Amino acid sequence: MEYVAIVTALALLQVFIFAFQVGSARVKYGVSAPAMSGSPEFDRAFRVHENTVEQLIIFVPSLWMFAYFVRPDIGAGIGLVFIIARQIYRSAYISDPAKRSMGFGLGALAMMTLLVGGLIGAVMNLL
Amino acid sequence: MEYVAIVTALALLQVFIFAFQVGSARVKYGVSAPAMSGSPEFDRAFRVHENTVEQLIIFVPSLWMFAYFVRPDIGAGIGLVFIIARQIYRSAYISDPAKRSMGFGLGALAMMTLLVGGLIGAVMNLL
Amino acid sequence: MEYVAIVTALALLQVFIFAFQVGSARVKYGVSAPAMSGSPEFDRAFRVHENTVEQLIIFVPSLWMFAYFVRPDIGAGIGLVFIIARQIYRSAYISDPAKRSMGFGLGALAMMTLLVGGLIGAVMNLL
Repeated sequence: MEYVAIVTALALLQVFIFAFQVGSARVKYGVSAPAMSGSPEFDRAFRVHENTVEQLIIFVPSLWMFAYFVRPDIGAGIGLVFIIARQIYRSAYISDPAKRSMGFGLGALAMMTLLVGGLIGAVMNLL
Repeated sequence: MEYVAIVTALALLQVFIFAFQVGSARVKYGVSAPAMSGSPEFDRAFRVHENTVEQLIIFVPSLWMFAYFVRPDIGAGIGLVFIIARQIYRSAYISDPAKRSMGFGLGALAMMTLLVGGLIGAVMNLL
Repeated sequence: MEYVAIVTALALLQVFIFAFQVGSARVKYGVSAPAMSGSPEFDRAFRVHENTVEQLIIFVPSLWMFAYFVRPDIGAGIGLVFIIARQIYRSAYISDPAKRSMGFGLGALAMMTLLVGGLIGAVMNLL
């Protein structure tokens, strides 16, 4: 399970960096807290972070259920795909929100594979 | 623990569907990313999703602590009540935000039962 | 691991209280759902809660990985520091958003210690 823990930690480090970049965008574009909007650049950084948080709430438990009920090494590999996809999503979103689909789709596919795979694995274990 | 995993996966599938419905509302009501507001219908779908994410961060660890320190079958049953309550909450919120209280309250009650039950179970284990 | 579970439950109770305080601020300052902004006081309570949710998605898995791969008692202690820091952050943010840095920084430091410590612990376990 060490590989699963390492992939989890990398995904958490990634969202921490995204959060840090929101803070930097606050300063750079002069959006003082508690404002949550103000310049297109800040809005993009903010939405990338929020969207990643929303996905992590699904990703982390799904990764561990997949690892436990299916296979940890494959789970860790799919988890890496998710992290890379989130990086592609961020780069695309920052340059042009309309281009965010590919990174988003790849990440969602990885996440859903873990979730549905983990669910099937748990059901199979019962039978 | 398989039932607990299945209930967890169902709750994660539910929030994924809520997220998907936010995306659909973006298209239907013409709210382009990164905008997070624009039409009452979009705002409602958005808030339902956000609120569910905020609750899942409490629900998932609470469910597993309750399952581990109290009883997994009862934990899974209370988890199902939470999922049904969230569906009632969504239907009510979409039709009229003022009617969201019952679904919200039932879900919060289920979640707090898991959280407080899990906490008491962990403390009892120590004594 | 009971101490780790208890600290987790306390952090979840804390964010539940923060959420409750957002609801109270809605009523007190007349910000009807689905609005997410409207008065500076509501905005501050809202941002404190959102920011804590964003941190818990990192904190909870990091705490358990640290507890498992490093030491549960030290993990639980650092977790308590995180909870206290979040309380300092909230008090400061509510009185003046510009004063939120100390509580924020202390909480982020505790969280990163758990995350990086857990990551190093998992990597060391592999070697």
